[in-house]
This record gives sequence, C-alpha cells and structure tokens, in this order.
Amino acid sequence: MGRDLLIKNAKVWPSARSPVIENGSVLVRDGRIAKVGKFIARADVVVDADGQLLMPGLIQGHVHLCQTIFRGAGEDLQLLPWLRQVIWPLEASHDEDSIRASALLSCAELIKSGTTAFLSIETVRHTEHAFRAVDETGLMGVIGHCLMDMTGGYAPLSVEIDDALAYIDVLQENWSEHDRLRVGVAPRFALSCSGKNLQKAADYAREHGLLLHTHSSEQVDEVELVREMTGKYNIDYLHSVGLSGHDVCLAHCVHTQQHERELMAGTETKVMHCPSANFKLASGIAAIPEYLKMGITVSLGADGTACNNRLDQFQEMREAGLMQKIRLGAEALPASDVVWMATEGGAKTLGWEKEMGTLEVGKRANMILVDQSTVHTIPSEDPATNVVYSNTAADVLMTIVNGKILYEDGKLTTIDEEKLRRDVFRERAKLMKKAGLA
Amino acid sequence: MGRDLLIKNAKVWPSARSPVIENGSVLVRDGRIAKVGKFIARADVVVDADGQLLMPGLIQGHVHLCQTIFRGAGEDLQLLPWLRQVIWPLEASHDEDSIRASALLSCAELIKSGTTAFLSIETVRHTEHAFRAVDETGLMGVIGHCLMDMTGGYAPLSVEIDDALAYIDVLQENWSEHDRLRVGVAPRFALSCSGKNLQKAADYAREHGLLLHTHSSEQVDEVELVREMTGKYNIDYLHSVGLSGHDVCLAHCVHTQQHERELMAGTETKVMHCPSANFKLASGIAAIPEYLKMGITVSLGADGTACNNRLDQFQEMREAGLMQKIRLGAEALPASDVVWMATEGGAKTLGWEKEMGTLEVGKRANMILVDQSTVHTIPSEDPATNVVYSNTAADVLMTIVNGKILYEDGKLTTIDEEKLRRDVFRERAKLMKKAGLA
Repeated sequence: MGRDLLIKNAKVWPSARSPVIENGSVLVRDGRIAKVGKFIARADVVVDADGQLLMPGLIQGHVHLCQTIFRGAGEDLQLLPWLRQVIWPLEASHDEDSIRASALLSCAELIKSGTTAFLSIETVRHTEHAFRAVDETGLMGVIGHCLMDMTGGYAPLSVEIDDALAYIDVLQENWSEHDRLRVGVAPRFALSCSGKNLQKAADYAREHGLLLHTHSSEQVDEVELVREMTGKYNIDYLHSVGLSGHDVCLAHCVHTQQHERELMAGTETKVMHCPSANFKLASGIAAIPEYLKMGITVSLGADGTACNNRLDQFQEMREAGLMQKIRLGAEALPASDVVWMATEGGAKTLGWEKEMGTLEVGKRANMILVDQSTVHTIPSEDPATNVVYSNTAADVLMTIVNGKILYEDGKLTTIDEEKLRRDVFRERAKLMKKAGLA
Repeated sequence: MGRDLLIKNAKVWPSARSPVIENGSVLVRDGRIAKVGKFIARADVVVDADGQLLMPGLIQGHVHLCQTIFRGAGEDLQLLPWLRQVIWPLEASHDEDSIRASALLSCAELIKSGTTAFLSIETVRHTEHAFRAVDETGLMGVIGHCLMDMTGGYAPLSVEIDDALAYIDVLQENWSEHDRLRVGVAPRFALSCSGKNLQKAADYAREHGLLLHTHSSEQVDEVELVREMTGKYNIDYLHSVGLSGHDVCLAHCVHTQQHERELMAGTETKVMHCPSANFKLASGIAAIPEYLKMGITVSLGADGTACNNRLDQFQEMREAGLMQKIRLGAEALPASDVVWMATEGGAKTLGWEKEMGTLEVGKRANMILVDQSTVHTIPSEDPATNVVYSNTAADVLMTIVNGKILYEDGKLTTIDEEKLRRDVFRERAKLMKKAGLA
C-alpha cells in the first residue's frame, strides 16, 4: 500500500471541457484518485500547489522511443528518403544498450514535459529492452513491437511475420500482467508490410486483446504507392486486411478520402495526429476538426524526435491549434478541443479511458502541475488558452503517474540524468558509426 | 567605464552561418566585444559557460509591447474583428501605468527568452512611458509611436497627424541621444491611416532619420479593402505615399504580388515575418524563402501576445522553419537561414547591423547562452538545428545586452518580478473594465 498524497491549494482542472476549481485539492490513495474538489484532508505527503494549475497528465498517441537517440540526424528530408537514408539504417544498428539509452532519454523528456502515458512503435528487435527501461521510470504506456517484412531491398529490418509474432509471445509472457505497461502490435505501414503480415498481425492482436498501431496516409506519394500496389486507398486497404476497428490506431491520416473518414468513424478506428512531424516532413495538414465533428477519436503525439525534434506535448498542442487556423479560419479548433485530444483523446486511443485522461475518483492519479505565474503566461487566466498557447514544457512543475511523483523541483525521481547523458552520447556515436552516418 | 566580462569554455557560435568554436571565449570591454575565439584572458567578471552555446542575442523585428497585457483576451478571431472588438478598445483604455506594466512584462519575457533588441509599434498615446520602462530594463530597441487617423467610426484612437508628429517631436527631444533606444514612426496600416497621414509620416521620418514601421498585406480581406480604397495593391500604395526604401519595415507581407516583391527587393524595403501570428489570426504562410532568394531582408517577430500568445523568438524560429515545409517541401528554409533571420536579419531591419546580429569585435556585446545539454536537445549537436527545433526559451541560461547581464540563474537583474506580477494583474483588471470587456 502506498502512502496517501494530497495536492492542495491548486487550480484543479478536472478535464479539458470542465471549469476550474479554485483553491481545490486532489487526494490520492494507492495510486488512484480518492477525492477531487474543495475539501480539507490529511495525508502522509502534502504538496501545496501555490495556486498553480493541476490538470490530467498528458497522453501521447504516437511516439517512437527508439528514435529519440537519432535526434538531429535526418534534417530537411521528405518521408520516404528520410526513412530509407537515415531512420532505417539507424534502427537496424540498434542493440540492447542503445535501445535502452534511447528509451530512457525519451522517458526523461516525456516526464519533464508532462506526458504521463504514451502509445509507441519501437523497432523490429530488442523491444524487451524498451519495456525494461520504461518500467524503471514509472511511466505508463502501450509499447508496440514493429513488424516489417517488405523493406524494398533493405534487408536488415525485414523479419518474417511468424518470427515477429513469436517475439511478441515472449513480450506477452513478460509483460501481459504488468500494471502500467502493455504490449502493442505495430505493423509499420502498408508499404513495408505484406498483406499476409498485416492480416496475421490483426488476427494475433485480436486473439490476445492487444492494440494495433500503424502509420497511414502521411504523405501523398505514400498513398499513391499503396494504390499502385493494392488498387485501394490506404485506409480501405488496411480495412480489407483487418486493420480497422476500435482497437486500431492510425498515426497521421493527413491525406484521406471522405469515404475513408466515414469508414474510420463507422469502425471507431482511432487517429493519432502529429502536427510537428507533419510540418517537418512536409506531409500537410490533417483534417482534424472534420474528424472530431464526425466523432472520430483523435489524440496527439510528437512522433519521433528525428522529425520534430522534441517529445513535447505542449508544442504539439500549440501546433495542432495553430495549423488548423490557416486551413479553416481563426475560429477553428478551440483550445479546449486541443487539450481534449492531448488528454481524453489519448486515453481513449490507448483504451485506458477508465484509467486516465481526467481527474476523477477511481482513476489513476496521473496528473501534472503547470505554472500559471510565468511572465509568458500572465495575465491570461483561461486554462485551455494558457496550456495550448502560453505554457511550455518548462512550466511543468510536477509530474505524477499512478500516484507517484516522477518529477519535481526540476529533478527526475526515477532516472539518473547524468548517467543517462553519458550513455546517450556513447550509444549515439556507436549507432552513427555502425549505420555509416558518422 | 564598465568592468571587463569574460565568457569562457563556451561553444562560441559567432553567426548563423559560421562554424562553432569549441571551448571558445568572448571578452567584453565597455559593453562591446573585444575578442572572440580561443584565447586566455583575465577579466573583472568571468563566466564559465560549461560548454554551452554562446550565440548572438536574438532580435525581433515586430512586437507590440503595449499589447502584452492583453494576452488571452482575444482568442480565435480573424484580424479585422480582432482589432475592432478587442485590441483597439483595449489600446484606447491604456494609461501611463498600464503602458508601463505592459512594457515591463514584455521586457521580462523578451529578456528571459533571449531577445536582446526589438522593433515595436506601441499605441497612439503614452509612448514616452514605454520608453521609460524599456530604458530601465537594459534592452535595446526602436520603439514606434503609432499613427492612426482613420479608425472606421472608432474615434478614441484617431489622432490628427500633426498632433501625432508633435508627440514624436517630444519623444525625439527625450530619446534621440539615447545609447540603446531609438524612436520609430509607425503608421498602423493603410486601412487606418489617410494618405496624408502616411505621406507626412514618411516625410517626417526621412527628415529626422527615423525608421518607418507599419503592417502590410497580412490578410486577403485587408488587401482587398486597400484596393477598393486606393485602386492599388497594398505595397504599391504604400510606395506611392513614400513608404518604401531601406528605412521602411513592413510586418507580415503574407499576400503579395510578384511585382510588389520586386518593388520591395529593388527599394531594399524590409519584411518582418511573424509566423505564429500569421497562424493564429488565420492569415496564411508568407513566401519567405522566395523573399530571401530575391535578396529581401527578412527578420522574425512574435507580433503581440494577443495573437501568439508569447514573445518567444525560439517559438517563432521553429514555426518559421516548419511552416515553409508544408508549402515547399522538407528541404525548404534550412535551420541556419532561420537563425540568420532571427539575428542578422533583425539587425539589418533595425539599421543596427554594425552594432549587433553577430559576435564580432567592436559590436555591442549582445549575446545569449543556450543550454545544449537538456534531455530535449541531446544528442543532437548542430547548433542551428538545435536552436530552431530542439531548444526552447527556457534553455536560455544567460542574456547579455550591451555587455550587461540582464538574466542569469533564472533571475532578471533589472526587473522586480514580484512587483511586476502585482502591477500587471491590477492594470489588466482596470483595462478590461474600462474597455467594457470584463
């Protein structure tokens, strides 16, 4: 049994579309929220929030922990050359130590910038070591093992589907009972997976009750190549091999047809929107307000740092809000909708809507304290406007996951930052050399 | 005579397109740079940079100090209703105390986020009090007194041009000999200034050697209204009344004709690009790479916090880089060009290219120290990539203007932040009530 934790004297913001409770408190017991509102209570640990904003922890729908160590290595390239020239050679060069360093670096940044849970795609090997690293940090997540069997002559990342699923069997053995982590099944995208691969992945995931996580319709040339290969639009094709439904999470969906949108809405397929990555790789602007209007669940994610270059959900919220305005006008996508995507939308995407996304009694105590008194925030007082447009990752004062404080007073409580820095530089040098990019 | 200052053990990055000097030093004497490179020296004050990046101070080409206190007050509106419903009523409600609070709040944010000099447009009254506030902070800037004599039935901000120029005479008397501040002449934009106003402003500025600062071609409907009113495209019209030339600074220029671009290039007219504001007010994406290719000097600015909502040049650099990629592809606008706009482009815009923009012997010691060791930056090592895409305003460790440290160890040295907060909230409440927006 953990000790009780009380956060008091906070602007408590229970959810993206609810009003703020001034001078509110949240009581945490055994990692879960026991009470929210205006009350007086005792606890083993009491935090005085000094009037700052206590809100649900941010949740990212699409990241690649294994790419964080590639940061800055593939600048100013479009998706397909970026994958083939930089990302795949680097992924193929990963070993257990570099996967671990990259995962810990990701978690350090995620925790410091207020992300409390995530959905990830790793690479085709060593995913066990991503799990072990994340486990140490206290974060929550659905970590996807990547499937690829068509790599266009680039053999090192190609793995037969049966071998890949056998690896996931082992992950399941080790992690299926874990309290904070779950296994995801992540065929990379239609262009690097055979139809058999996709179909078997879908069957396997359904048999084991796992989330399916893939990329779709990120760029025009990708959509065209899928049409050439299959005769179908991307999302139609994915649907035809079993990749649609409430357990299917599609990153990007920038270039979609109206009938594909209806398909996603009708099947409850999820969309993970990655605004910075869509800018950086020149993909375009996804029709997010339209998706939301159709009832599609949309979450936000930073994608990989190699196309961002941060894992900062505050930045993604800002980009998500701004980019729609040049498409649809200044009224498009109000800030509260953006915060909804970054919290409740993320929770629904991860299938954890009963566990997180809002501050409600019984849910995990996943929450962040955000400074509202900085010179770049005052005197604005609307929490949604502040969080989306004024606050930055550096304004996160405290990150709590499952009732445990993972970050406070500028310090990570579960990661040794100095050791991490040394490990990251050593592993980066090794990777760049091995990939022939040094 | 000031004391000598030595920054040692830094990655010295003298200018946007030069290589980094590892383990370098910069010596400052009497507020100016006395030596740059790898050397050993003594000084009264020695700062060990611990291997972090020492680069030219950022320079913003377009801000409104008087609007910072409006932050969060006019969300999700397009330019013209935003001006008429929110910004103008608030500007008209300003008094000396609210102007001072807004200017100091701006300077606090600018200094903390690494901006060392700026070009601003204030409102039609009380500009003297903006000067006095900025003077106290140690920042450098060209502060523009706003001219408007056509306010579409909104009388409180309309001032006859002769009265406005008489006010600028007084500003000139008080500030023309100042070492760090200069007076600017700022007719707001073609729609709120009569032809006589614009022509007299241009004549006055030329007679006194002052910069002319205005807005142009921010939105489609603005350009159309100018055509209806004058029969000319916006920049053609401004040219016809004297507003073109090396001393004319045009904010935005989002919607321009090819012949207008040639006019700007041929007359050495400056463009100030405000990416966040162009997103937030739904203006569009300016053709910045094309302007740069034609030799037009482009700088970056945050515009006002009421359409941003920060004054953070790191954010503007990131948006400037990202937004062009969805227009022109992933190779568009390399990070080093973005940093050039944020430093040298700014210096040229302010007419201060011999004083700032690079770390060169004889220039003002305007420089910032930027953390390269954060978990959101490592292991990327290219300074341009880091500064544009990984670093945030919170990574500014030290801001130096004119050889004086204005910010270090998280503290402003010239502004009392606690008093500022109280003043800002008091003045904001007063303004909102007076403007009928409370």
